Amino acid sequence: MTTPWNQRYALRMQNMGSSLIRELLKITQDPEIISFAGGLPAPDVFPVKAFEEASCRVLRKHGSQALQYSATEGYLPLRRWIVDHMAAYGINANVDNILITSGSQQALDLIGKVMINPGDLILTEKPTYLGALQAWRAYQAEYTSIPIDNDGLQTEYLEEALCGGPKFMYILPNFQNPGGVTLSLERRLELIETADRYGIPIVEDDPYGELRYEGEHIPPLVVLDAQRQEGQPEFSNGHGFMRGNVIYISTFSKTLAPGLRLAWIVAPSEVINRCVMAKQGMDLHTSSFVQMTAYEVLKGDFFKNHVHLIRRVYDERRQVMLDALEQYFPPGTHWTHPQGGLFLWATLPQEIDTLALMPKAVENKVAYVPGSAFYPDGTGHNTFRLNFSNAKPEMIELGIRRLGQVVQAELNKRESPEMTFA
Amino acid sequence: MTTPWNQRYALRMQNMGSSLIRELLKITQDPEIISFAGGLPAPDVFPVKAFEEASCRVLRKHGSQALQYSATEGYLPLRRWIVDHMAAYGINANVDNILITSGSQQALDLIGKVMINPGDLILTEKPTYLGALQAWRAYQAEYTSIPIDNDGLQTEYLEEALCGGPKFMYILPNFQNPGGVTLSLERRLELIETADRYGIPIVEDDPYGELRYEGEHIPPLVVLDAQRQEGQPEFSNGHGFMRGNVIYISTFSKTLAPGLRLAWIVAPSEVINRCVMAKQGMDLHTSSFVQMTAYEVLKGDFFKNHVHLIRRVYDERRQVMLDALEQYFPPGTHWTHPQGGLFLWATLPQEIDTLALMPKAVENKVAYVPGSAFYPDGTGHNTFRLNFSNAKPEMIELGIRRLGQVVQAELNKRESPEMTFA
Repeated sequence: MTTPWNQRYALRMQNMGSSLIRELLKITQDPEIISFAGGLPAPDVFPVKAFEEASCRVLRKHGSQALQYSATEGYLPLRRWIVDHMAAYGINANVDNILITSGSQQALDLIGKVMINPGDLILTEKPTYLGALQAWRAYQAEYTSIPIDNDGLQTEYLEEALCGGPKFMYILPNFQNPGGVTLSLERRLELIETADRYGIPIVEDDPYGELRYEGEHIPPLVVLDAQRQEGQPEFSNGHGFMRGNVIYISTFSKTLAPGLRLAWIVAPSEVINRCVMAKQGMDLHTSSFVQMTAYEVLKGDFFKNHVHLIRRVYDERRQVMLDALEQYFPPGTHWTHPQGGLFLWATLPQEIDTLALMPKAVENKVAYVPGSAFYPDGTGHNTFRLNFSNAKPEMIELGIRRLGQVVQAELNKRESPEMTFA
Repeated sequence: MTTPWNQRYALRMQNMGSSLIRELLKITQDPEIISFAGGLPAPDVFPVKAFEEASCRVLRKHGSQALQYSATEGYLPLRRWIVDHMAAYGINANVDNILITSGSQQALDLIGKVMINPGDLILTEKPTYLGALQAWRAYQAEYTSIPIDNDGLQTEYLEEALCGGPKFMYILPNFQNPGGVTLSLERRLELIETADRYGIPIVEDDPYGELRYEGEHIPPLVVLDAQRQEGQPEFSNGHGFMRGNVIYISTFSKTLAPGLRLAWIVAPSEVINRCVMAKQGMDLHTSSFVQMTAYEVLKGDFFKNHVHLIRRVYDERRQVMLDALEQYFPPGTHWTHPQGGLFLWATLPQEIDTLALMPKAVENKVAYVPGSAFYPDGTGHNTFRLNFSNAKPEMIELGIRRLGQVVQAELNKRESPEMTFA
């Protein structure tokens, strides 16, 4: 009797479904399509030369260490570099608060594994990062969500949502994926205060914090939480930097290169310890070679200068996209004005379904991600996400022109029955 | 109210505990200790120069691809290389049957995620690989086990165990970790036949299959299963190489380098598809840079020649360890005679507890892994695992002499009350 595999899969697999983004990324590998769909950084600013030199140096000097098993927590010099980097960003941590992960997707998976029981409620922004929804569906999480506006999470709905007893909140405060919006300082403070009052932890995902192109830096939630906790006697337990409410995630995917799969978690040391135990069963550790090579690249002033370069390049592309939208998108369409990051979010008239429109767009050699994928409740049918970091400026302009025509044609089609009466 | 983290963890975390191996590996980083504890390959045979050249070539020629996001399934040329490699090993697969994973630990985690519901029974060998027990405990698996002898799994107990309705069997047929024993052809055929009759899948973990130092190669379970299925009408579904009962796992950790975190799964394509979906939520994909660099190293005749070198080096170390055990270990102790791989397994007189003996061994600057960690039922208190791949021959001899003295001293202590009567 051969194995009837489909009767063997775990229940959690029945919630997973196939991933829309994955299928879309496949389509958009056609080089003729101008894709705003992926969250791909610009390959033209990858520090290829720096990696070439660094990998040679690492293998020449520490070859047998780079190719050997290493500690689950991560390469110590890299963790120390992250401690300094976080300090410059306002986050006071020590190495016991840092865990290196295989991309921030693994950080999300780890948090799911450590925290989520089947049926647990997770509170998210609406829309929110698709990869988090996907990671936690595998732990049979349920979602509840609060809509965002131009200032991020609408905190006026927070207390009501927290009464539902979520296990934790998942928040992307800076240049949110997919919305492109930023949580205001006022709302951050309100969020921290309310989370603290209800004792509900926050998972703060901050992949783009370094990539601000306009406006003032706003302190991350983990910093505001630490400031709030400081006055309380139980704040310092001597083993870690805090007993706060926030687990903070960031990544090298947008500032160095996503092909490394290199990210990190900052959290109270007892949370890190649990995550280390879980990670050991998941992949033992992140590639020693990758960690050591990245550290070799990061040393000195390289990182700061490289981030400046990325900011300049992405800021230009963002501006090109905003100008092109202004020029080519029909009346009745709206979009966010991101102050940083990689994405903006467009809203079309109610009658347009962006998932149904997708084949038309692909036919016209342009792609986006339909918005409903980012809505835990499956709404958002008339929205889509546009990435502005990957394509070159002239391609962005051309792609937005094509997309504007597709949207206009769809609107015309829907208006035409009325027009015959006009 | 600061978060009471310990009230926030998922139930599955309560089964995990801290890992003994991890704590041991920490202790044994003291360079004065001769460690037989880890499963570390010999760093002196790492192909450091080949990696240096390969990483430079990859970054020079395909830098922006190596640093960019890539497909969850893995780098296509590497998957094709694995198809050819598997064919040479007797396994007929095509690229749709291959998934690249971040080490075989991730392959185990993936299989757990795709297959295990809480409370599911997994049938293992006894002793078995600790990392699998740990990975699947996170999915709240229960274990049932069948003891091994010098010919591997004792198949006479198989039918009774299968009546318990396990979700799958986990088998390491070649130079088993930790036992060092190899499943005989006769028992492989019996295992395949019985699994087929009960419709219970087999997860075949084969990290050391290439590293045989004596005796004849025995076909892997996945090959014997395919041969058996061939006569049956439902064998080929046109989408993959088979509808068999076996999920096969192997790795580059023992033949190239573990610091890469690079392994693969061979399975019917529908199983691979499920694993791809799960992997996407876990780490999106394995490092593009690592995959491309490994492929660059593997091309041509390099791999075959390199495996020959490893065999020669490890064979010598195995022989040194076997000779030293013969010379220094007291009567009443036994050990397996591995035909390949990295480990052998020692059994001491019943009255000795190897976990309790561990601090004595460390005091005497030698380390092993206490056997009970490898027993799903917590027995095996008088056994331990010895690794012979990592230390150089003269260190192996010295370490076994030290360990022999520790064991002898423990036996003397236990015999001394009687000796005062003699």
